[in-house]
Amino acid sequence: MAQRYVRVQNQEGRIYYGLLKPSQSVQVLDAPPWLQGQPTDLHLEPDRYKILAPCAPSKIVAVGKNYADHAAEMGTDVPREPLLFLKPSTAIIPTGGEIIYPAQAQRIDYEGELALIIGDRTFSCTPTQAQNKIWGYTIANDVTARDLQQRDGQWTRAKGFDTFCPLGPWIVRELSPGARLQTFINEQAPVQSASVDQMVFPPDVLVSYISQIMTLLPGDVILTGTPVGVGPLHLGDFVVVEIEGIGRLENTVISREYTVVQPFEKA
Amino acid sequence: MAQRYVRVQNQEGRIYYGLLKPSQSVQVLDAPPWLQGQPTDLHLEPDRYKILAPCAPSKIVAVGKNYADHAAEMGTDVPREPLLFLKPSTAIIPTGGEIIYPAQAQRIDYEGELALIIGDRTFSCTPTQAQNKIWGYTIANDVTARDLQQRDGQWTRAKGFDTFCPLGPWIVRELSPGARLQTFINEQAPVQSASVDQMVFPPDVLVSYISQIMTLLPGDVILTGTPVGVGPLHLGDFVVVEIEGIGRLENTVISREYTVVQPFEKA
Repeated sequence: MAQRYVRVQNQEGRIYYGLLKPSQSVQVLDAPPWLQGQPTDLHLEPDRYKILAPCAPSKIVAVGKNYADHAAEMGTDVPREPLLFLKPSTAIIPTGGEIIYPAQAQRIDYEGELALIIGDRTFSCTPTQAQNKIWGYTIANDVTARDLQQRDGQWTRAKGFDTFCPLGPWIVRELSPGARLQTFINEQAPVQSASVDQMVFPPDVLVSYISQIMTLLPGDVILTGTPVGVGPLHLGDFVVVEIEGIGRLENTVISREYTVVQPFEKA
Repeated sequence: MAQRYVRVQNQEGRIYYGLLKPSQSVQVLDAPPWLQGQPTDLHLEPDRYKILAPCAPSKIVAVGKNYADHAAEMGTDVPREPLLFLKPSTAIIPTGGEIIYPAQAQRIDYEGELALIIGDRTFSCTPTQAQNKIWGYTIANDVTARDLQQRDGQWTRAKGFDTFCPLGPWIVRELSPGARLQTFINEQAPVQSASVDQMVFPPDVLVSYISQIMTLLPGDVILTGTPVGVGPLHLGDFVVVEIEGIGRLENTVISREYTVVQPFEKA
């Protein structure tokens, strides 16, 4: 089994990067692995930690319509260049975390995606150079309030709610080019199932393209777009995004009581 | 004169928050002021530091079309709710820093703006509560590649280039409601001149609205939109955004040689 790089919190609230062992214990690293973190003698037993998202990025850069069949289901063409947007880091939750259905939205969708973890500070690299800038791979769910996405034009609100970026469960260094991505709702037949090599712009091209706009920093995350089959989430749903060779990202959809102050419309 | 809160770097590369004294020396604080940083006995003389942007936000949330006259000049109505977008923190430069004209763009515009600095972790606050979440005020230039903004639809690339978020020069705690914002190119007559109370959605409403989507963290930045009068920047331009009671944010437009890898279009 490939080495699994995790980020965990112990019972005292301390956060560590580490290696997840087959026994489910975690061997702590002395720094993030992309900053040359080395294994220490500290091991955390399974009942002594909770798993966090596997990195804490300074930014999450995401790509729209990067699978032709998904662009078609959204009624659009594939863009001629990668179509970028940002998600705030406050949207990240780990595997096992709860996706909160916002009171403002009438429809929220899952979007299972392959996520890239950047290893080096990177500005203006070529696709060939980019292959060495991608430190590893994990799984994301680019949760989207579809009604707000259509209403706002800009996607920031629709994709920026707290909990709208499940990320994890861990990072692996290698990915087979034809790895299959599948999304499951409530343990039924997959609603998304595609090989990640069906991307319009593959990972190295995406990293090169983004790096010519904004400097990428170690631990930054690139979401590579979702394949065909997006659809709604409902309260209580258990949503799993699985990528062959990485693992399963598992989340539940809940509601949370809070006051939405209305109206914002100018009198 | 109001207290001016700065962030500086000394000659050894260490970064400090501090108070800028009338003598231009900086009294160092032991933490960011919104995290209750207290003055120390360390003072940096003017030749011993360089000024940085006054905070290092986890995110920059910006608002489009928040002055009616500017919405009109862009050929659109004022939105019924605040129109949000994000800028990456890698876009930030301080006063005195250089705005790099990207090779990909044919036209880049200045957009002078009032910036809010968040003091507390904030989720779902009312406008009244928001008044206590705004720790202070500074100045921003929401530099925008206008041609790419129109081409892409999503504004992330057009507004996300490195150096496209001049921010500073410092933070003040109070702002007079009718403070005037002015933008100057090459020391000529102002190209933008408006009172910040002409905003469609004022600061407390913006913070309340955003906080119902995403948790705001101490040091996060809200850009409140630009008034009428946006226009192009050219290589060599000296652009100043001034807000009464805060100060002047001064930047120069330069080019930088780097290779843009083309084409990204799928064969």
